[in-house]
Amino acid sequence: MSEKKPPRSPMDHDEFRRIGKETVDYIADYLETVQSRAVYPGVQPGYLRQLIPAEAPQDPEDWEEVFADVDRVIMPGVTHWHSPDFHAYFAPGNSYPSQLGDMLSNALGCVGFSWAASPACTELETVVLDWLGKMLHLPEHLLAGTAGAGGGVIQGTASEAILVALLSARTKVIRREKEADPESSDHDVMKKLVAYSSDQAHSCVDKAAMIAAIKLRKLPTDSDFSLRGTTLSAAMEEDRANGLIPFFCCATLGTTPSCAFDKLLEIGPVCCEENMWLHIDAAYAGSAFICPEYRPLLDGVEFADSFNLNPHKWLRVNFDCSTMWVKNRADVVDAFDVDPLYLRHDNQGLVTDYRHWQIPLGRRFRSLKLWFVLRMFGVKGLQQYIRKHVSLAKEFESLVLSDDRFEVSAKVVMGLVCFRLKGPNTLSERLLQKINETRKIFMVPAKLRDTYVIRFAICAATTESSDIVHAWNVIREQAAEVLAGVQNGV
Amino acid sequence: MSEKKPPRSPMDHDEFRRIGKETVDYIADYLETVQSRAVYPGVQPGYLRQLIPAEAPQDPEDWEEVFADVDRVIMPGVTHWHSPDFHAYFAPGNSYPSQLGDMLSNALGCVGFSWAASPACTELETVVLDWLGKMLHLPEHLLAGTAGAGGGVIQGTASEAILVALLSARTKVIRREKEADPESSDHDVMKKLVAYSSDQAHSCVDKAAMIAAIKLRKLPTDSDFSLRGTTLSAAMEEDRANGLIPFFCCATLGTTPSCAFDKLLEIGPVCCEENMWLHIDAAYAGSAFICPEYRPLLDGVEFADSFNLNPHKWLRVNFDCSTMWVKNRADVVDAFDVDPLYLRHDNQGLVTDYRHWQIPLGRRFRSLKLWFVLRMFGVKGLQQYIRKHVSLAKEFESLVLSDDRFEVSAKVVMGLVCFRLKGPNTLSERLLQKINETRKIFMVPAKLRDTYVIRFAICAATTESSDIVHAWNVIREQAAEVLAGVQNGV
Repeated sequence: MSEKKPPRSPMDHDEFRRIGKETVDYIADYLETVQSRAVYPGVQPGYLRQLIPAEAPQDPEDWEEVFADVDRVIMPGVTHWHSPDFHAYFAPGNSYPSQLGDMLSNALGCVGFSWAASPACTELETVVLDWLGKMLHLPEHLLAGTAGAGGGVIQGTASEAILVALLSARTKVIRREKEADPESSDHDVMKKLVAYSSDQAHSCVDKAAMIAAIKLRKLPTDSDFSLRGTTLSAAMEEDRANGLIPFFCCATLGTTPSCAFDKLLEIGPVCCEENMWLHIDAAYAGSAFICPEYRPLLDGVEFADSFNLNPHKWLRVNFDCSTMWVKNRADVVDAFDVDPLYLRHDNQGLVTDYRHWQIPLGRRFRSLKLWFVLRMFGVKGLQQYIRKHVSLAKEFESLVLSDDRFEVSAKVVMGLVCFRLKGPNTLSERLLQKINETRKIFMVPAKLRDTYVIRFAICAATTESSDIVHAWNVIREQAAEVLAGVQNGV
Repeated sequence: MSEKKPPRSPMDHDEFRRIGKETVDYIADYLETVQSRAVYPGVQPGYLRQLIPAEAPQDPEDWEEVFADVDRVIMPGVTHWHSPDFHAYFAPGNSYPSQLGDMLSNALGCVGFSWAASPACTELETVVLDWLGKMLHLPEHLLAGTAGAGGGVIQGTASEAILVALLSARTKVIRREKEADPESSDHDVMKKLVAYSSDQAHSCVDKAAMIAAIKLRKLPTDSDFSLRGTTLSAAMEEDRANGLIPFFCCATLGTTPSCAFDKLLEIGPVCCEENMWLHIDAAYAGSAFICPEYRPLLDGVEFADSFNLNPHKWLRVNFDCSTMWVKNRADVVDAFDVDPLYLRHDNQGLVTDYRHWQIPLGRRFRSLKLWFVLRMFGVKGLQQYIRKHVSLAKEFESLVLSDDRFEVSAKVVMGLVCFRLKGPNTLSERLLQKINETRKIFMVPAKLRDTYVIRFAICAATTESSDIVHAWNVIREQAAEVLAGVQNGV
């Protein structure tokens, strides 16, 4: 059978051999020289539509024509996330081993919704999540092992991990309440449910609560922007007194505005005593827990029902790869299990069918890239990477502290420094706008209570001390102009 | 700045140039010879864990070591979705232009949650969805254009598209009902809501309803497994009489069990008159509507509030890429908009921020692969591809019809043939099991009412007439054994 020649297609195997290799060179060139590009694009909204035709071509175009448009149409509108001058949001994961994993995943092109749909896709994911779980010293009950009740799964994003946790908790509490009161309907229970997070938690917790149609209380934090156990207890007591049912808490380790850490060792026992689902979102900072010196920040994870971190942020894995572990996978499957015949297979029951662990049905072979990264960097290589980012952040912090026009607005624990010009918010607002207009570096702001701060995140894999100094020079230059403008009444 | 050398990493730019090219060759070799592999793997559950260490390595491993494990560990457990012997589920999208698009997307590694996060990522998506919308002759109001209220978005999967539609409709109806009765709470409204689909709709509609916590009625279909307008009207009338609020209907064009088509021209006007959100799920069959001869099946789309199809199924695009169009994007944004400062940017309001159109926050630059595919195949190339698949299905159908031990169980319209051995279900169940055990071809079953059928889907891009004949020979051989076993009382 294999002697049969497949028909001529727009790109046959040999053309791909040639063009694929040119693309590999293009990618290496791009990443090698990315810093020579302005980190933030100079385009205005709507720039792209005028650069390309209004309709798809009827006849095939040549690769050369298509590829030329990457430079003509796409590159002018790209924000270069992997430039050492990119300091916005949080570190985005990227590495060649990860890219190679995705190339293979796409070539296999299996859609791994069940074990049978591609056994390797399911099984590698379970085992590699155990690997990463062990690197993090997660408690045994969060790992799958060969007979565990828990285990890990790769979600697309932390948003999905949190939504899955919330929906699982919702299903569980509805069942419990309806057992206690068989007369009540799902909605009778749902309207009494209340979930908690800190007021620093990511907006995706709000979004998850909107989707799940449950009340979310965002609780005040202490002076370090951390949620305390007593705050949680007090809120729960108040809500119980009002006839509500506390059922879910999302603690954050490494918040987005300032990389603050909720007090897990206080919150955990409260959740545990009160039979409340505890989810831990450590999307960014979680990767750091592979270093023994940062692992204490995760103490209390033994109280958690579920936990997520994003290797696609700080562990050299390309987006998307948000790893999630659950204590009791039956809790998750209960919330999502719908099983038509066309998806059933002979080994049903014996195996993990990840479609019941997530919102979508289909899933890519994402564990390949994670596996490649863990093996090609090794635990030590990844620890070294984390430590380098933290030390660069400390270096930036000391530059800010050395200049008395500026202040550091939150404790620097990981690769993020929140800083501002002393004085009214408008100064720092103007400063950030001017800095980003230079397109020499790119940062985004946050509000810490009423204080506007500029977030300086160490992002690129190749950021070095010289880039920190460069960024600081850009910031100081623009600050001088802002402050001079104020003095001149501008 | 760019003269600075990045530090030695586990794989530097030059190593990637070498290894990336080797990987390109491996991919071309794999896809060129995929049919020489058994389509379905011979492994048992748990096979993989014993093949690799229990923990991640401390020190980096060499690429050669890692790569050798692709053949040793992964390949034995892979179901080969792109083999011409794969006839399960539905066609999976794949092509070299698509793979190249994803390679570039990963190299750029931007996370396009907002316009500012990478303008090209947002803008290309909007324009290319307009391209595809025009290829489908969608009504103007579903396109973005430069001033439209609607437009397109790439979701990961049809599950997500349907969930987004359902949640948008839920938000809209809750608002309407609360305006009419300001005393009522969200849950007062939600518990009265009822959504509809046919009993042939995909399980992801059930899952979406579970997540959204609303009632779903799966309505009976006619003899062609199509939902009729009168069935829908009658159900709505009954539900209204019981105090419920009909608010959402998901019509399917190309159901998963048998590729049946709901009667859009009947359902559409009902939804429209009753002010009910109409979503159309054409995950598989939707791609065929780029051919004028199949476009009439989409007539009635002008009544839809939202519509999705999966280019990652039948339009040569790698998973994941589920394209969705909405009539009124404000309806979607209303359901998901949560907006912290760190995600805001200067052009807010002027532009599309796709994070408000979807469940996750982050998103990959998926429009690149769709753009590459549309350009390198051209409309004509893609039409030709669809037509070839349909004609191969017709060829298979005629083989089945020529053998009076078999029957065809549903109309063959696209690339799917549902067939069975005449007689009790157990015969066909045994037949499918025996066929899949040969590992020569791979199919999955479905239930059409009480009838067990075997689904024969044309899947791979390289499937030819000779593969159809080969599959039919495998089926006939096994059928002879099954029927002989029955005669011998086995």
